[in-house]
Amino acid sequence: MSLVVVGSMAFDAIETPFGKSDRIIGGAATYIAWSASNFTQPIKQISVVGGDFPKEELSALEARGVQLEGVQVKENEKSFFWSGKYHMDMNTRDALDTQLNVLANFEPKVPDSYQDCSFLMLGNLVPAIQLQVIEQMKTQPRLVVLDTMNFWMETAMDDLMKVLKRVDVLMVNDSEARELSNEFSLVKAAKKILTMGPKYLIIKKGEHGALLFHSDNVFFAPALPLEDVFDPTGAGDTFAGGFIGHIARTKDISFENMKTAIIYGSAMASFCVEKFGTERLKSLTKEEIDRRMQQFQDLVNFDIELV
Amino acid sequence: MSLVVVGSMAFDAIETPFGKSDRIIGGAATYIAWSASNFTQPIKQISVVGGDFPKEELSALEARGVQLEGVQVKENEKSFFWSGKYHMDMNTRDALDTQLNVLANFEPKVPDSYQDCSFLMLGNLVPAIQLQVIEQMKTQPRLVVLDTMNFWMETAMDDLMKVLKRVDVLMVNDSEARELSNEFSLVKAAKKILTMGPKYLIIKKGEHGALLFHSDNVFFAPALPLEDVFDPTGAGDTFAGGFIGHIARTKDISFENMKTAIIYGSAMASFCVEKFGTERLKSLTKEEIDRRMQQFQDLVNFDIELV
Repeated sequence: MSLVVVGSMAFDAIETPFGKSDRIIGGAATYIAWSASNFTQPIKQISVVGGDFPKEELSALEARGVQLEGVQVKENEKSFFWSGKYHMDMNTRDALDTQLNVLANFEPKVPDSYQDCSFLMLGNLVPAIQLQVIEQMKTQPRLVVLDTMNFWMETAMDDLMKVLKRVDVLMVNDSEARELSNEFSLVKAAKKILTMGPKYLIIKKGEHGALLFHSDNVFFAPALPLEDVFDPTGAGDTFAGGFIGHIARTKDISFENMKTAIIYGSAMASFCVEKFGTERLKSLTKEEIDRRMQQFQDLVNFDIELV
Repeated sequence: MSLVVVGSMAFDAIETPFGKSDRIIGGAATYIAWSASNFTQPIKQISVVGGDFPKEELSALEARGVQLEGVQVKENEKSFFWSGKYHMDMNTRDALDTQLNVLANFEPKVPDSYQDCSFLMLGNLVPAIQLQVIEQMKTQPRLVVLDTMNFWMETAMDDLMKVLKRVDVLMVNDSEARELSNEFSLVKAAKKILTMGPKYLIIKKGEHGALLFHSDNVFFAPALPLEDVFDPTGAGDTFAGGFIGHIARTKDISFENMKTAIIYGSAMASFCVEKFGTERLKSLTKEEIDRRMQQFQDLVNFDIELV
């Protein structure tokens, strides 16, 4: 019974209206691992980095119960690098630079010790690579969760459609849901996407919360109203980490438990955006997470008293 | 102990991506009255119409417990007319035509029979007129709720600031909250606006729900995910009607009860957008409202199980 996480481990350089970071540690799988490790350990990581990826970052992850047997280190190559700039509304960003580097020829290898995988979290990555990981799994995980993005819809739609047929839960943001379904209404988009493979669909709406769809059921998780969103980079990955972390900890893949998992995801994301990069995630305590979960409950809790 | 509603009663012509209406009945006070009358009666209406306003519409309102002593009928003039066009996202609209007509010289007169007012709902209208109504009240209502819009911030800010000092609850949408406060973050905007007079601030975010702020407390009400938003005209007024209707019915102006009131407002708004104009509101049953309230509770209800 273990959690396997697939995704990039990388460098980011980020500009927001509030400041500018140097080249800092990023990558979907990095955020997912930091987030999920608050809920469950070990985490079995699959990724690739170059020789420039700091060894102390790998050690820090190991100290958090993240196993790195599936992380290839290509000493003579460079790690994936992304640079982007956010605008005031923080929902749109411009990519300033994207250097695939080690990701360009990445061939994931699932170690034998990862074959006990019950929960597979496919972080945002080339769909063909996500598919390779699924295909290397000798037994079907209990739950496969996929995060993806518009870029793959525009450049690798055929592969993405193949991956979709193999996953249980899909996470995308609202504009991606619209793009994938060609429907403007998110309810209609969800109905269409749920015929493409996934049985559960999570639509992330940033500061406007997230929706979970499953057959005719829908659940809405709010986002915590924050004074400042300092840096949204990694918020979606951190959300994914909180979601799958809670599922893996509780070993409960019911719709009811997914609701709670989404609130955990939202709580973790609300921490992520408070500082640049993974900084805030590294210093989190159980008490802080518990307190924030209580804030989410207070935020939406009301009494019905029918007319 | 009565509810007094102030606002326009008018004609609208609406174009949406889904269709086009003829000249139909609209106006803030019309929507508020139809919505609130599901919760409390009588409703004491203050407005002005021209001779062209259909007598049967006035009779229909009277049959719903809406008292019209405060509604001036200017037989030789024309009712306020607004025409607008919505785009696909339904959050933005273009005004195509605005004819003030009877509203241009409207001087509201509060009838003696309205002086038992406990709850005063000031629907969107010229701030100076809203202020005149407040000033004609011989005793201070228990709760004064104000709805307004960006147009008055741009054309009558001084008057609006005077009204703000006299109200308990302000309702605006997210862009209006930003405009009024000159803050992008809604949390910061709320803090600033709560120093301008109102003790409670409701920020309406359309399909993204609504936020209620009061000192350091915040509550979030989701919007119901809908397959289609057919016509958003009047949704904000209908929301206001559900909110004040529930408050007036329960006579409870606590923060806790305002939470429930906002959910009622959201539920009523979710009906409003299903058809053009007030059509859907006129045919609502208690059972439909109860069922929709249950949907709102199911939508956000989750179990916390702390880490």
